[in-house]
Amino acid sequence: MPDSATLLISSPDQRGIVASLAEFIYKHNGNVLHADQHRDDGERLFFTRIEWSLDGFALDRADFWSAFQPLSDRFSMSPKLYYSTDRQRVGVFASRYQHCLMDLLQRHQIGELPCDIAFVISNHPEAADVARFFGVPFHHVPVRSESKYEAEATQLQLIADAHTDLLVLARYMQVLSPEFVAQFAGSIINVHHSFLPAFTGARPYHAAYERGVKLIGATSHYVTDALDEGPIIEQDVARISHRDQVEDLIQKGRDLEKVVLSRAVRWHLQHRILTYANKTVVFD
Amino acid sequence: MPDSATLLISSPDQRGIVASLAEFIYKHNGNVLHADQHRDDGERLFFTRIEWSLDGFALDRADFWSAFQPLSDRFSMSPKLYYSTDRQRVGVFASRYQHCLMDLLQRHQIGELPCDIAFVISNHPEAADVARFFGVPFHHVPVRSESKYEAEATQLQLIADAHTDLLVLARYMQVLSPEFVAQFAGSIINVHHSFLPAFTGARPYHAAYERGVKLIGATSHYVTDALDEGPIIEQDVARISHRDQVEDLIQKGRDLEKVVLSRAVRWHLQHRILTYANKTVVFD
Amino acid sequence: MPDSATLLISSPDQRGIVASLAEFIYKHNGNVLHADQHRDDGERLFFTRIEWSLDGFALDRADFWSAFQPLSDRFSMSPKLYYSTDRQRVGVFASRYQHCLMDLLQRHQIGELPCDIAFVISNHPEAADVARFFGVPFHHVPVRSESKYEAEATQLQLIADAHTDLLVLARYMQVLSPEFVAQFAGSIINVHHSFLPAFTGARPYHAAYERGVKLIGATSHYVTDALDEGPIIEQDVARISHRDQVEDLIQKGRDLEKVVLSRAVRWHLQHRILTYANKTVVFD
Amino acid sequence: MPDSATLLISSPDQRGIVASLAEFIYKHNGNVLHADQHRDDGERLFFTRIEWSLDGFALDRADFWSAFQPLSDRFSMSPKLYYSTDRQRVGVFASRYQHCLMDLLQRHQIGELPCDIAFVISNHPEAADVARFFGVPFHHVPVRSESKYEAEATQLQLIADAHTDLLVLARYMQVLSPEFVAQFAGSIINVHHSFLPAFTGARPYHAAYERGVKLIGATSHYVTDALDEGPIIEQDVARISHRDQVEDLIQKGRDLEKVVLSRAVRWHLQHRILTYANKTVVFD
Repeated sequence: MPDSATLLISSPDQRGIVASLAEFIYKHNGNVLHADQHRDDGERLFFTRIEWSLDGFALDRADFWSAFQPLSDRFSMSPKLYYSTDRQRVGVFASRYQHCLMDLLQRHQIGELPCDIAFVISNHPEAADVARFFGVPFHHVPVRSESKYEAEATQLQLIADAHTDLLVLARYMQVLSPEFVAQFAGSIINVHHSFLPAFTGARPYHAAYERGVKLIGATSHYVTDALDEGPIIEQDVARISHRDQVEDLIQKGRDLEKVVLSRAVRWHLQHRILTYANKTVVFD
Repeated sequence: MPDSATLLISSPDQRGIVASLAEFIYKHNGNVLHADQHRDDGERLFFTRIEWSLDGFALDRADFWSAFQPLSDRFSMSPKLYYSTDRQRVGVFASRYQHCLMDLLQRHQIGELPCDIAFVISNHPEAADVARFFGVPFHHVPVRSESKYEAEATQLQLIADAHTDLLVLARYMQVLSPEFVAQFAGSIINVHHSFLPAFTGARPYHAAYERGVKLIGATSHYVTDALDEGPIIEQDVARISHRDQVEDLIQKGRDLEKVVLSRAVRWHLQHRILTYANKTVVFD
Repeated sequence: MPDSATLLISSPDQRGIVASLAEFIYKHNGNVLHADQHRDDGERLFFTRIEWSLDGFALDRADFWSAFQPLSDRFSMSPKLYYSTDRQRVGVFASRYQHCLMDLLQRHQIGELPCDIAFVISNHPEAADVARFFGVPFHHVPVRSESKYEAEATQLQLIADAHTDLLVLARYMQVLSPEFVAQFAGSIINVHHSFLPAFTGARPYHAAYERGVKLIGATSHYVTDALDEGPIIEQDVARISHRDQVEDLIQKGRDLEKVVLSRAVRWHLQHRILTYANKTVVFD
Repeated sequence: MPDSATLLISSPDQRGIVASLAEFIYKHNGNVLHADQHRDDGERLFFTRIEWSLDGFALDRADFWSAFQPLSDRFSMSPKLYYSTDRQRVGVFASRYQHCLMDLLQRHQIGELPCDIAFVISNHPEAADVARFFGVPFHHVPVRSESKYEAEATQLQLIADAHTDLLVLARYMQVLSPEFVAQFAGSIINVHHSFLPAFTGARPYHAAYERGVKLIGATSHYVTDALDEGPIIEQDVARISHRDQVEDLIQKGRDLEKVVLSRAVRWHLQHRILTYANKTVVFD
């Protein structure tokens, strides 16, 4: 695959955006590899993702923005530009349960996730072996309620030192403070072990068992300061029956958690996701 | 298929129930066609469904209970007995949207639902044509907030006159009064157009759109006096994306509603469902 | 929704197509409602679907092609243009099993299928009642092996008389002759009751039961003269178990058949489907 | 959970089997934990799985068969007895792709698979690290076409030395000889990366891409000497679109492969599977 650039753009909806964007890429000799777009008619907003080959493209990084600015201004765009050669750095937070952590690291190992894994941070020491096996730096940062802010300060320093672009909560069982979340708005992905908005909060499998549902689910979402209420990226479900005890729900749910979390991380890394109005647009 | 009898039994869990039941059927020359059971270890309860052929069975209806009573008493059973020759009578309530009504009647027509359709009652006149096409008696019972109890009195009389065993709410958009529900505990099946417990109440597709979920669902359940909180019988989901508007959710949801409602009705008619602790055991 | 026009285009892949198309619509004052595209890198082909509002669009029907021809020539396009105001006419073929027929007609009735139903043709008389209920002309055309060509001649005349745009085989159990198919290439949609390419030919549910699969499926596809080998439009599956007998497979399969057939018909009517290399591109 | 014993029984279908079995367990003071059964009316066969607690059970291992033999003879049963305390030994064959191997070992590590992993054998050396990480003996046994039988002799010796009960082919890319398979009839589980019977043989994802299917699948099955034609244990599918290239199918398929293989292994280890007529009964 050639090196490419990707623009993710939100703007008010107006005639001529698509034509102007396509013309811009074309006149600078870019070859569009993928383009997708979405309109929200109710909100009168326009969203697009356009990826083009850099092979022969006339604008280098230094020149791009000065060339693009007039277009961006004309349509009041909020554009983000990504180069495929800028390898993103992903930090992973884990706790006692390591199935999502191991799943992510194994997917990374075989090439499913286009990024570098910057570190694993856990409030439990057990994840050290997994991190070492995959050659990822590991930091044990215990979190106790009375020293939560000190722990977060330590985490924040490690994140900064590692030049982290994306933070993935791989069944990390601590709630992050609003101050922490505010520093990484749109860059923290969590997996919750229910089909949200059902069963928010702690012990969703127990709640699902109590309610007697026939499907359990898992949800990956961006973290906001409202617990379990951030923009949903992906969800999936599995069928259960009266025979399934809570432990069976937990076991079946692990497969869902791994799948929905890894899809969300991959799509984020591929710059497929735009958020607005507490929702996501996921371009395929 | 031969004529058969089916026992649905709940009891405290004790050793020897299965052996005693099997022995009872066998010694009266019954041939077991299907048998299934479930234990709830937490609640220490035992549930079973046993169906046997009446061909050669030594006990006729008049004799059954006197023969069975000692066994039932010994294990403190709550037994229910059904004969396949007792064709159940099902009444259907509908409103403006008729896809579930038509789906049920068509399934009945081609033999998917072992019952008689006793009537269709609707608060809208439009369903009359559908009922007529399928040869089912139709009653138009308008429901207005100021005359709700009169309407329910009319409905109750029609239900009684038709010797109704099961009431199916096929997207019936009126809330039944607690008094009405109390008269048919465990014999009213509703379909709610969300994956409960998410999006209870009115306009669940609108709420799902607002929340930005990636799956929508439908749920069939027994009606209790707590709205949308009765024992869940069946659920299913469909994938949606950011491209789907509320009307798309409504359209995709119709397919879910038809499927989960018809499964619930069929399983009820086949005496596969036991309820306890606001949950269902659905024997397959 | 405003009146709109939709272009479906296949062409060799070249730089500048997207920009030129968008520019063409824009300069004639069209407002793009949806646009999607696909590249097949292996085949070096480009496919796009672009839909724009006719409100204010500067080209009327008479002028469109003369204005568009230079662009089409420049990129060697194969374009098809559809106006939303040209209501398509759909003919339905049915046989003994009428669940797909009734499902299609009911979906049409409630507005899921943007078309007119031109007629129902069946080799069995039973479908007459269904057609009459939905107000659709019905023709009983018996098909016997010794008079197959006469029957097809009758069918072809009825199709021509009704100005039919699309033919839907709703569990029509007769194989159409290659001559018949040739006249409607790309305009006949069939549903096959298996997940193709497994279980082609007759009695796929029996074959699935024999093989002991754990999933059954259904497939909608365009009809070609190779039986069950045309371009696949949609597939879906349902889980079965050892408890399911052939009749259970048939029953569960009906729900799949209805869903995959109706989706295919809707997508075709919305001009979402392009075919090439015996495959479909289905723009969402 | 208490220690338990499980009987898996096939027999001709006759009246009184269930009663006699239940009575046998009960009179020896066994407490039935789970019981399930299945009839194949066409084949006139009966299958059952019955699990009971050994706590208080009157028959020890030495006595069981002499006590059970009369019952077994009376109903011409083919019974198999398993004790939960007899930990099964599982050997895993792997090749270059290690996602299924790692998935199995991680599931074993967190308690999803009640067995010991006896060894990993691979024709590629890369799996050594994974095996070492999970503390499992690793053997590199290269397989070349000219020395296939020598390789199999080596494998057989390692299998025998390890007292292996079950062999799992975790995307092992070599075809086992009929002689090899014959020695482990019913004790080799394979995963094939398609929804069988579609796309048997090599490169099923490429074949699926060529055919243009809208769903891909994976199948776990017992290995017989007819390639990809053994009894199917489990299948699952994932949706794909025209946007998915072969590499995308391979990636999406990996998740299916892991899930269907691990379910099959778990169910086998829980003695839930009976095979007959080249099919499986999977008791839940």
